[in-house]
Amino acid sequence: MTAGPDFHATIPEGDDRERDVCRTCGFVNYVNPKIVVGAVVTHDGRFLLARRAIEPRRGFWTIPAGFMEEGESVAEGAAREAREEACADIAIDALLAVYSIPRISQVQMIHRAALARPEFAAGPESLEVRLFAWDEIPWDEIAFPSVHWALHHWRAVEGQAAFPPFVNPPGQDGRAPLPY
Amino acid sequence: MTAGPDFHATIPEGDDRERDVCRTCGFVNYVNPKIVVGAVVTHDGRFLLARRAIEPRRGFWTIPAGFMEEGESVAEGAAREAREEACADIAIDALLAVYSIPRISQVQMIHRAALARPEFAAGPESLEVRLFAWDEIPWDEIAFPSVHWALHHWRAVEGQAAFPPFVNPPGQDGRAPLPY
Ligand SMILES: [Zn+2]
Ligand SMILES: [Zn+2]
Repeated sequence: MTAGPDFHATIPEGDDRERDVCRTCGFVNYVNPKIVVGAVVTHDGRFLLARRAIEPRRGFWTIPAGFMEEGESVAEGAAREAREEACADIAIDALLAVYSIPRISQVQMIHRAALARPEFAAGPESLEVRLFAWDEIPWDEIAFPSVHWALHHWRAVEGQAAFPPFVNPPGQDGRAPLPY
Repeated sequence: MTAGPDFHATIPEGDDRERDVCRTCGFVNYVNPKIVVGAVVTHDGRFLLARRAIEPRRGFWTIPAGFMEEGESVAEGAAREAREEACADIAIDALLAVYSIPRISQVQMIHRAALARPEFAAGPESLEVRLFAWDEIPWDEIAFPSVHWALHHWRAVEGQAAFPPFVNPPGQDGRAPLPY
């Protein structure tokens, strides 16, 4: 084991802004925004939500979503997350929204999807997975603002085959601290 | 100066795939796909292209595009790239395309935009910047396949106010090596 990197902020040669550079080994840690891929998944008019088994927001409900990995497309990543978190096979039919969250340096690419078969179960990062009718959704126990946004944006284009993806709702620039 | 990181591939505790870990300092280099933000920019029916002053593909023509930085939205990043590479102020009106390029671990988010004022010039990463009518575009000197895709996708929705963003063209999964 080693003590871990010893980063300090400096502007590398040829760059135009500060980056974290390791004093021990010289590594330059270019931090770019990360892509979160996910989906609002429905089945017979109900919404597939997973209760988080991990922090942040353990115990709160979310749509299947997580960090995109290398070697996959955006839609493949969203399908993988549904498999991992909800043991669900999904069929994606549209890009529902692209949310920019500078506060946590994320771009969230949320799709519209249906269950490809009616089975699902909690994966290792979920405490439970359930289908909720709209009026049953536990709105006070939703994990993140963007889950609220995505569910409401889903409703705004219900039944529409083709539409431009939504972005952040007005006044929500993804920069303000969360209320919890 | 130091020798730089000494990475070897190993599966960190609690992870499910190999990551590069530095033998010198223990840093885990989580490599996620990077976001490229850009725009097809037009003015009076002509297309704004920049000739690249940097590798890869120095001397070839591209649309303004580059890596998204922290602290900005997707659209803000695309506008920043147009400023940096073409000294151009742009007005974005739609998300034209989301291309997944697993070969180079990129997701490219290309917008549709117009020049907000008719001035532009080569930035430090460009040799020159010009407006081309469609029939004047130097198709044999285009830097990257996704620039071809974006220009043709722009034409496919010319005059349409609202449309879903395009993805990779059929048969182009972004995994095959480039022909050059
Ligand atoms: Zn180091
Ligand atoms: Zn190191």
